[in-house]
Amino acid sequence: MKIGRYSVEEFAELVRSFHGNAAPGVILGGFMVDAALQRVPEGRLYDAMCETYRCLPDAIQLLTPCTVGNGWLKVLNLGRFALTLYDKFEGNGIRVFVDSEKICAWPEINDWYYKRKKKAEQDLERLLEEIKAAGAGTCGFESVQVKAGLLKKEERGGMATCPKCGEGYPSRDGSLCCACQGETPYSNTASSV
Amino acid sequence: MKIGRYSVEEFAELVRSFHGNAAPGVILGGFMVDAALQRVPEGRLYDAMCETYRCLPDAIQLLTPCTVGNGWLKVLNLGRFALTLYDKFEGNGIRVFVDSEKICAWPEINDWYYKRKKKAEQDLERLLEEIKAAGAGTCGFESVQVKAGLLKKEERGGMATCPKCGEGYPSRDGSLCCACQGETPYSNTASSV
Repeated sequence: MKIGRYSVEEFAELVRSFHGNAAPGVILGGFMVDAALQRVPEGRLYDAMCETYRCLPDAIQLLTPCTVGNGWLKVLNLGRFALTLYDKFEGNGIRVFVDSEKICAWPEINDWYYKRKKKAEQDLERLLEEIKAAGAGTCGFESVQVKAGLLKKEERGGMATCPKCGEGYPSRDGSLCCACQGETPYSNTASSV
Repeated sequence: MKIGRYSVEEFAELVRSFHGNAAPGVILGGFMVDAALQRVPEGRLYDAMCETYRCLPDAIQLLTPCTVGNGWLKVLNLGRFALTLYDKFEGNGIRVFVDSEKICAWPEINDWYYKRKKKAEQDLERLLEEIKAAGAGTCGFESVQVKAGLLKKEERGGMATCPKCGEGYPSRDGSLCCACQGETPYSNTASSV
């Protein structure tokens, strides 16, 4: 069994190095991304959409050209363990999700997916064995059409210097940058060091 | 000059393979992350916050243990080219940003950062030369305190099966999953394939 151009063990090693540990979600995600890639027509330029922040974005970033920083991967916080690879111009694509009926055949995957066991109670080795044995056999596939509004490339727009913090920001954001308008994640007045 | 444990050329190669091309923003981002790492106390467990979706998240993911999928990197859409590495429990950290005064000494960086030239007009080679020559010399540094609300680890919570789409979702989201509540990114009724 392969995940992209890797053996399962090679992919697990890559996941360890990027994600910090061979997390079940990234290994399962690897099978899902691989299964999606096999269904993308040859030569098609695709973007990726991920419906959860948990683990799956890293499988996408490791196995496709799509990353958060190059803008070809969008992550939505919908809480579903699913991803879509779609034509970046037309929006038609293939969605891969965990099929809650199919996983009934895999008790460890089922308990893990539905968070029925505390982490300490999980048998990680058995869970990973089930994930490797099941491959994409726990997944469902759908044809989807991504909404037109999500296909638009963000306008490049101009930059300005924020009169409050003195940093560059997209001028379309207003007369101050978003952080100085109140979205700052910091509670102190920052001090230079 | 080094970026993390890489020579600048090695890092550029890594960026090509992950991000798709040796984009100026990821190379500059590499110097910024490296400079931040040098200011994190030894042995400190840190998380990362990135204030833009453009390029910089990939430099963070390549040079630190923090990724989008493992939850140690948060990306905010504030439009400032800046990142913070902070103590994941206490929230105190070091913020690195592009200093709009310091970049005046680097004309190509200045024009690129303020988007004063169309992509076709940019002298990419000269821009990259300036970025490599300047290193973190275009950056400012601040001590910051991340807001307490952003430090809280998301509750694990239970999972339910959405009665509409049939997929697992965090039960705290309500009686339907967020996608079926109207946040779906798809315009069609999906069809199984």
